[in-house]
Amino acid sequence: MMDQNRQHARGPFRPRPERQTPDREPAEDLLEGRNAVTEAIASGRPIDKVFLASGEHDRALARIAALAREAGAAVVETDRRKLDQMSQTGAHQGVIAAVAAHAYSTVDEMLLRARERGEAPLLVLCDELSDPHNLGAIIRTAECAGAHGVIIPRRRSVGLTAVVGKASAGALEYLPVARVANLVQTIRDLQRQGVWVCGTAAEGDTPLCRADLKGPTAIVIGSEGSGMSRLVAEACDFKVSIPMKGNISSLNASNAAAVLLYEAVRQRG
Amino acid sequence: MMDQNRQHARGPFRPRPERQTPDREPAEDLLEGRNAVTEAIASGRPIDKVFLASGEHDRALARIAALAREAGAAVVETDRRKLDQMSQTGAHQGVIAAVAAHAYSTVDEMLLRARERGEAPLLVLCDELSDPHNLGAIIRTAECAGAHGVIIPRRRSVGLTAVVGKASAGALEYLPVARVANLVQTIRDLQRQGVWVCGTAAEGDTPLCRADLKGPTAIVIGSEGSGMSRLVAEACDFKVSIPMKGNISSLNASNAAAVLLYEAVRQRG
Repeated sequence: MMDQNRQHARGPFRPRPERQTPDREPAEDLLEGRNAVTEAIASGRPIDKVFLASGEHDRALARIAALAREAGAAVVETDRRKLDQMSQTGAHQGVIAAVAAHAYSTVDEMLLRARERGEAPLLVLCDELSDPHNLGAIIRTAECAGAHGVIIPRRRSVGLTAVVGKASAGALEYLPVARVANLVQTIRDLQRQGVWVCGTAAEGDTPLCRADLKGPTAIVIGSEGSGMSRLVAEACDFKVSIPMKGNISSLNASNAAAVLLYEAVRQRG
Repeated sequence: MMDQNRQHARGPFRPRPERQTPDREPAEDLLEGRNAVTEAIASGRPIDKVFLASGEHDRALARIAALAREAGAAVVETDRRKLDQMSQTGAHQGVIAAVAAHAYSTVDEMLLRARERGEAPLLVLCDELSDPHNLGAIIRTAECAGAHGVIIPRRRSVGLTAVVGKASAGALEYLPVARVANLVQTIRDLQRQGVWVCGTAAEGDTPLCRADLKGPTAIVIGSEGSGMSRLVAEACDFKVSIPMKGNISSLNASNAAAVLLYEAVRQRG
């Protein structure tokens, strides 16, 4: 369902599979230099990724890497020439950090939020989305549909960049977004807590009209390029197929999320 | 519904209201010079817009303008310095044409297509969308939902650029797209032919759950910046409000289209 037809899945903003060179990050996202990055992490600013010059192993950089990992950021070894290209100041000293547009939340906070409202949890899990416009639109639509949060993996996913924040049209201020180390583990944890995890796939086992989204539900949206990864797909309780009436075999990721989220809204009345 | 909350409606790819300087058009879209543009029009290549140097009124340019209008393209007087910026060759001779990624169809062809399939027409009218990713995603989702066509206004709308074609993920090859001089006139024509025209608005008169989309239906999607224009809104038979459960007051245009189109799919079984 989710862009599984590679032939048709060419989107102009799709970066390479592992989005390690943030060529398109706006400058406001990037902090450069050892002191600036260290201070930002120490002050609790949410950091998505820390790009470290590969091959350099001095103590200061190793310390920054450790701090970044501890704070939940992905640490990405990056060619020094790429760092030079990313740099606005020309003085990155071997380290550039991508600051998140908003602090991350946790899955527990989302479940608590649902409980406090007396609602069955409604969550969206994004499996390795790379297009910030898709992630932003999903956050926006999830907020509009009354969902309790959006979950993304720490690696191989666009983070909460400024572009995501803008594409969310303000929703990032209201809806919790959590990043997790391992999406399959998170799915298992949710299942243990009574949440049904619903994947999306062209060859899904459950037509949309027969999917029950009234109870505690987490909807998994696959990546733009290749849909859900195999392990994630296997971990789902069921897989919904959205009816495809034409020749194209999949919806854009955020449009698929909109269809499922508003089916949940309809069922929940 | 459709981005009416201006405060939240800032999208990174939203161009100025009247998108007359196609700074972001990829080069493959642009033809430069009097012969190239004249030949392209004469050969029947679909042209979205012809940018003519303002203040220059020689005969050849006037003839190109007349040919372009006759072929259905918008003619936009453009400052010579802007033409210079757009130019890849440095030799535009006062005229640059934006070629469409696909030929345009007509509303009649769409209605014929529905009749041939024995289906109630399902159309999408886009009121002055400026983001090519939104238009492309709407074309894609309309194709997937089995709609019979997408209608855009000739002016004040992004045309079928290469970016739209790519964002449609191939759907542009299958789904007719028509451009019309006057959307209100088109709405009246559709109504005369028995099509119900359904707008979308936060303060709509019909909740989504009570909207009847089973019969001949045209769904109007408002622009990213300000929703449906007043005259278009007044021409609609009814206006659907999509439930908004959170703090944000509108969905992204393509996500709103997805929710309505798949509600039609659900109702039509």
